[in-house]
Amino acid sequence: MNKQNIIKPRKLSGFMELEPKEQLIFDQMIDKVKKVYLRHGFMPLDTPVLELSEILLAKSGGEIDKEVYRFNKGDTDICMRYDLTVPLARFVAMHSETLHYPFKRYQVGKVYRGERAQKGRFREFVQCDADIIGNGELSLVADAECLKMVDEVFEALNLEIVNQISNRNILFGFIEGLGYGEIEKQILTILDKINKIGKDNAREELAKIAVKEKDIDSLLKIIEKRGNFDKILAETEQLSQNETFLKGIRELKEVYSYLKAMQINEEKIELNLSIIRGQDYYTGTVFEAVMPNHREFGTVCGGGRYDNLASYFSEKNFPGVGLSIGFTRLFDLLLQNNMLENVPQSNVVLQIIPLGNTLLECLSLQEYFAKHLPCDVAYENRSFKAKMKDAGKQEIPFVLIVGENEVASKIYALKDMKNSEQFTLSKEDCLKKIVSNLD
Amino acid sequence: MNKQNIIKPRKLSGFMELEPKEQLIFDQMIDKVKKVYLRHGFMPLDTPVLELSEILLAKSGGEIDKEVYRFNKGDTDICMRYDLTVPLARFVAMHSETLHYPFKRYQVGKVYRGERAQKGRFREFVQCDADIIGNGELSLVADAECLKMVDEVFEALNLEIVNQISNRNILFGFIEGLGYGEIEKQILTILDKINKIGKDNAREELAKIAVKEKDIDSLLKIIEKRGNFDKILAETEQLSQNETFLKGIRELKEVYSYLKAMQINEEKIELNLSIIRGQDYYTGTVFEAVMPNHREFGTVCGGGRYDNLASYFSEKNFPGVGLSIGFTRLFDLLLQNNMLENVPQSNVVLQIIPLGNTLLECLSLQEYFAKHLPCDVAYENRSFKAKMKDAGKQEIPFVLIVGENEVASKIYALKDMKNSEQFTLSKEDCLKKIVSNLD
Repeated sequence: MNKQNIIKPRKLSGFMELEPKEQLIFDQMIDKVKKVYLRHGFMPLDTPVLELSEILLAKSGGEIDKEVYRFNKGDTDICMRYDLTVPLARFVAMHSETLHYPFKRYQVGKVYRGERAQKGRFREFVQCDADIIGNGELSLVADAECLKMVDEVFEALNLEIVNQISNRNILFGFIEGLGYGEIEKQILTILDKINKIGKDNAREELAKIAVKEKDIDSLLKIIEKRGNFDKILAETEQLSQNETFLKGIRELKEVYSYLKAMQINEEKIELNLSIIRGQDYYTGTVFEAVMPNHREFGTVCGGGRYDNLASYFSEKNFPGVGLSIGFTRLFDLLLQNNMLENVPQSNVVLQIIPLGNTLLECLSLQEYFAKHLPCDVAYENRSFKAKMKDAGKQEIPFVLIVGENEVASKIYALKDMKNSEQFTLSKEDCLKKIVSNLD
Repeated sequence: MNKQNIIKPRKLSGFMELEPKEQLIFDQMIDKVKKVYLRHGFMPLDTPVLELSEILLAKSGGEIDKEVYRFNKGDTDICMRYDLTVPLARFVAMHSETLHYPFKRYQVGKVYRGERAQKGRFREFVQCDADIIGNGELSLVADAECLKMVDEVFEALNLEIVNQISNRNILFGFIEGLGYGEIEKQILTILDKINKIGKDNAREELAKIAVKEKDIDSLLKIIEKRGNFDKILAETEQLSQNETFLKGIRELKEVYSYLKAMQINEEKIELNLSIIRGQDYYTGTVFEAVMPNHREFGTVCGGGRYDNLASYFSEKNFPGVGLSIGFTRLFDLLLQNNMLENVPQSNVVLQIIPLGNTLLECLSLQEYFAKHLPCDVAYENRSFKAKMKDAGKQEIPFVLIVGENEVASKIYALKDMKNSEQFTLSKEDCLKKIVSNLD
């Protein structure tokens, strides 16, 4: 191949590609998330990355259209999925007769958004979603189960979070009760962005659309409420007689009673009536988890209750509740902030290094050890010294040195690289030593 | 939503979408494959699904172009990956300075080919690849390691295979030694398709391009050789003095000596000098695994040695050897032929069913059990009878019945659904009973 034919290797910008040692941790974390979902009786679903544009764009406004990867193949108008919810809706509508309800499914998969690349934003990212779908109706226990799983997932990941919980009906109903009619939506929009624009600007904007100062005060007071559920719900309950508002209070009380029965860690949840999660889609419980020591990370997990998953694909009613973790973004934040624990150079626990003409014996020993733990043989054509040095660089915890004497005696030199200790043992005892060290 | 606004839910044809219970098995099988790769010290890689067309199509001929999903986004000419090898080559070329060699990576991911949809062919499919890449040189132990992993992967999947192994240099060198010059490639092409067209047609076609009958006889004799490596290699060795041929014999002997040291199951491998795997790319060891009781499935795993992974992206030389399992196709074959073991309706091991007003207690019990096993609560608003019937239909092995008496006494009714036995036990003893039953 001539030099001029070489194509400079590069990947598309905005696409995460981890080093293998980081990918190992990524995969292990994903496995932990899946394990929590599975323990709660969720089943996996894996929908295709490609869908008909007619399906995928059925419910989206113009906004998503710009971001979506869309193209024609032959006569077919195709999109890459931009979330896992529309495919779930399509799946449920297609299989509504044969599914078992409540349908508890999780999906861990890549989704695509061709938005402008910027730091911390990815065009391909892994989402870890779990949803519970009812047929016609769905108990509020499902909302509590999702909230409990958020707690358990981050516990499993060893990441501290606070899950901020509300019920949209509380704030919506309260605003409705103020009687501003048509500008209700504008009020919500302003409140939804209060964390970005600040309280003073919000106050100004609300005044501009003729919300009375007294009402602005009570609105800001409500959305600033935080903390103990029982106390705050009891206080808040007095503030309006609006039916939607009271429904929200009732629902949140019920969900909270289930959370207590589930022994949720109370320090990990927080009532926060400012949580809205946009104006459409969600209809009851809403939540956004943040990391209390890294609030700048924003929402690391969010979700809520929706009345009708599949309205574009079915006349039937499928209420649901779900949670979603933008895993690629979360992982990137942890990586960039040196918050990943124990990233090893290699997953090999034992490397067998031949000394002299012992390669075949080493391969036979690998066969023995690899049944129990990740093990390889340094079979490359390099010096023993170079191989030992390399094992150190790779942070491999144990090395087995196999010379011709060792082959004859079947007693091997096991080196604990971390503690610079060396043992002379049979292969069975080497295995015991390593395994006991791993526990 | 009005009826006329409902969009008929459907997915693109040629895309596999499993039922959740099947997906559960699919995922469990993938996990088993990964475990084998990890035990051999391989590390995971996850390249993006999308690549620059310039990169992805660098080495492909016109043939793949028709199949590839290619589109523009803004000014960027983008392709969906059609295999995991070109992205690996791009990755290695980009990170050649920092990788540790031999670089052992596995990748389990979806690849895309927009070919005409037909039974058993998918436009999106999961590949499970493992490759070992050297820097400048790579020991033949790597070839043996890949062959050993094929054995272990299918052992882990509990699927019987025979891995047909050759070294391309043997057949290539033998043909070269016959001295037909320019028509060598045509001879190979005819031999490569012999399983499709049959021996007689191959004989005819070879005669047509003026291959002598004596040479046709010896060619057909060579590619029909099967069985014991030592014996056949010793026999075959005598048949030519061509250097390439003798190199192939030497390499295969060496690889076989490693396989024996690795205690490979000799019944699972077979020397088969007809294995070619196309005319390009592979340069030494080649293999194709088939299921002896289902030869009609074709190759379920294939791979081999290549001299230079990244020639289009780098002036350096990266020899490699790898294996690839077309997992979606394999799974589909197993599914269609009822060869999947134990497909459960649900992964739930214990379902807790409230009887009377005991929901909160049930949620608290779920919290206890779900720490140890997949467990859920039948919290929907349906009759106890309907829930019990449903647990049976879902094939859930254990049901815990929690009435008000049980709450008071903390002694619960555990029903073993399979054996229709019922026990009256504390929650701790229920857990013991279930766990002992699972082992």
